[in-house]
Amino acid sequence: MKQSMRKATIRDVADMAGVSVTTVSLVLNNKGKSISADTIKRVKESAQSCHYSASPIAASMITKKTQTIGYIIPDIQNIFFSQIAKNVETEMNKVGYNLILCNSDDRYDRDLHSILSLANRQIDLLIFAPSAESLKAQNVDNLYHVLSNLEIPYIIVDRDLGDKPCHKIVNDHEFGGYLATRYLIDQGHTNIACISGPLEVSSAQYRYRGYVNALQEAGITVIKENLYEGDYYFDSGYKIANQIFTRKEVTAVFASNDLMAYGVLKAAREANVKIPDDLSLVGFDDLYFSSILDVPLTSVKQDIDKISKGICNFIVQELDTSKDKTRDFITEMIQPSITIRKSVKKI
Amino acid sequence: MKQSMRKATIRDVADMAGVSVTTVSLVLNNKGKSISADTIKRVKESAQSCHYSASPIAASMITKKTQTIGYIIPDIQNIFFSQIAKNVETEMNKVGYNLILCNSDDRYDRDLHSILSLANRQIDLLIFAPSAESLKAQNVDNLYHVLSNLEIPYIIVDRDLGDKPCHKIVNDHEFGGYLATRYLIDQGHTNIACISGPLEVSSAQYRYRGYVNALQEAGITVIKENLYEGDYYFDSGYKIANQIFTRKEVTAVFASNDLMAYGVLKAAREANVKIPDDLSLVGFDDLYFSSILDVPLTSVKQDIDKISKGICNFIVQELDTSKDKTRDFITEMIQPSITIRKSVKKI
Repeated sequence: MKQSMRKATIRDVADMAGVSVTTVSLVLNNKGKSISADTIKRVKESAQSCHYSASPIAASMITKKTQTIGYIIPDIQNIFFSQIAKNVETEMNKVGYNLILCNSDDRYDRDLHSILSLANRQIDLLIFAPSAESLKAQNVDNLYHVLSNLEIPYIIVDRDLGDKPCHKIVNDHEFGGYLATRYLIDQGHTNIACISGPLEVSSAQYRYRGYVNALQEAGITVIKENLYEGDYYFDSGYKIANQIFTRKEVTAVFASNDLMAYGVLKAAREANVKIPDDLSLVGFDDLYFSSILDVPLTSVKQDIDKISKGICNFIVQELDTSKDKTRDFITEMIQPSITIRKSVKKI
Repeated sequence: MKQSMRKATIRDVADMAGVSVTTVSLVLNNKGKSISADTIKRVKESAQSCHYSASPIAASMITKKTQTIGYIIPDIQNIFFSQIAKNVETEMNKVGYNLILCNSDDRYDRDLHSILSLANRQIDLLIFAPSAESLKAQNVDNLYHVLSNLEIPYIIVDRDLGDKPCHKIVNDHEFGGYLATRYLIDQGHTNIACISGPLEVSSAQYRYRGYVNALQEAGITVIKENLYEGDYYFDSGYKIANQIFTRKEVTAVFASNDLMAYGVLKAAREANVKIPDDLSLVGFDDLYFSSILDVPLTSVKQDIDKISKGICNFIVQELDTSKDKTRDFITEMIQPSITIRKSVKKI
């Protein structure tokens, strides 16, 4: 990272003045009643020579930089998104940037509200993982219109805005769905149910498409009854599992994310269905909980580190004022892999 | 909730003007190039008669209300905190409030930075779950000083600032530690290891104190070797477990949170230690993953719904401008319970 990009942090001011970060905060926020006049003077001089300002809003009026990045996620309880948040935050914190998060609860109106609210707070850049509802045909055009009119750069993560031109880092969900299904076929399964995500969402479509591709490649007929549409949440996996258990001909399930696979596991325990003896199961996301289950879950692993790094690289490039911003939109496609554990039986 | 407290939302304006939320957003942000002059006029009139402003900063200069609540959490991957965030957000969203989140990664400097950064963005209220580092003796006074000088109300959640007077909603961690240990004693265990949280943090101290109380009440000597200090993260449970496995006299483990208990489970699987046959295990938090494990985890359940409701009640009272704010500091102590599953063997 270029030195020119890095802005002074409160730590720099503290180091220069030889005081604690707290003292700097108190002085620059005019709350240093108990601090000596001499220290106050030293802190203010240090802040000035570092060009540091403690008020993001005051600073933004001059420099148009608030050293804050906004990140809108669809579900704060989905560890996939929170892990990316943590990685990006840790990395950007080193160069003095803060991350603030908004949770859309997978709702279009909250996406819209968060985008405008964050933009009004003069964040420098927006990371945006759109809600399922935002990607529905009747919403995505409006959403793209709002995004395109922002004065700050933004990058779409994980879920794709269809074919709209924008910066994006997405997983190759189709290849992931293919990997999961192909692995089940290789273990001898031919009657494989698929619990998909909400099918308006591109990631869910692509994962399902990968499932279909693997079946067709193996010459297995795709049966309509084997598609169960879920919503990526635990409860939907739980409910759908109980429907699948009534169909004894199904020998394996591909759940389009680990949360839904956990729902299947819970239902299986309650219904006394043994995994993998009675039913094989593959998930998608490879959350670390998947490795500690008593029957550890075979799951498609999204490369969260690579996604996080891609986001950080984008941020650094975009916020480097020494660079021209006329380059093309970037599209980074991250390849998943499969982590094989004990939830699948060879038949 | 009183009608007087509720501010107009973008939805209200949309309903009044008979247009979509997006249209309102575009018009009020001067981005409605493609919208008819007639619609623009109708939206602007509706916004005016609702006293709605789309720019939180502009609005805050007049009303000092931004309809935004800040929430600082120590670890975005700890489901306990993200579940509270989700509950509070869902509730406050109904009355037009937004939640923005900052993650401190359990660091004091980031707590400090987030507090000042959020306050400068003119949030209306701060919900604050302090980092472990902030609660160390050398930091907590400074932190309290900064909080006390904020011009907005704040409430401390889960982790206590020692005896500092402030609004707080905390779990009765001591009672929880007592419940877990008492249950193990009732099942015949006398040599019980405790994996504590970081002992500078009050919640960790209290949970450990509850463990000590239960042992003493039963006339069991408290052995120093049975205390293992962890840090509330998965990895520390994993590492400590391998130390505990070498001491065959230990028959049970009380892990001070579920994440560390999951670490114990992973280590146990790898070391071929059977739970509960070789070792009994109790966790704390009762995350929903605990119920789907093949040996479901007995765990102390914090009443997240009650905590979330307590926070919402506080917010509503504080932001109700019709009420006087001279009332005393509230301290709400939430009682945990224990959820008994299969990770404990009677001996």
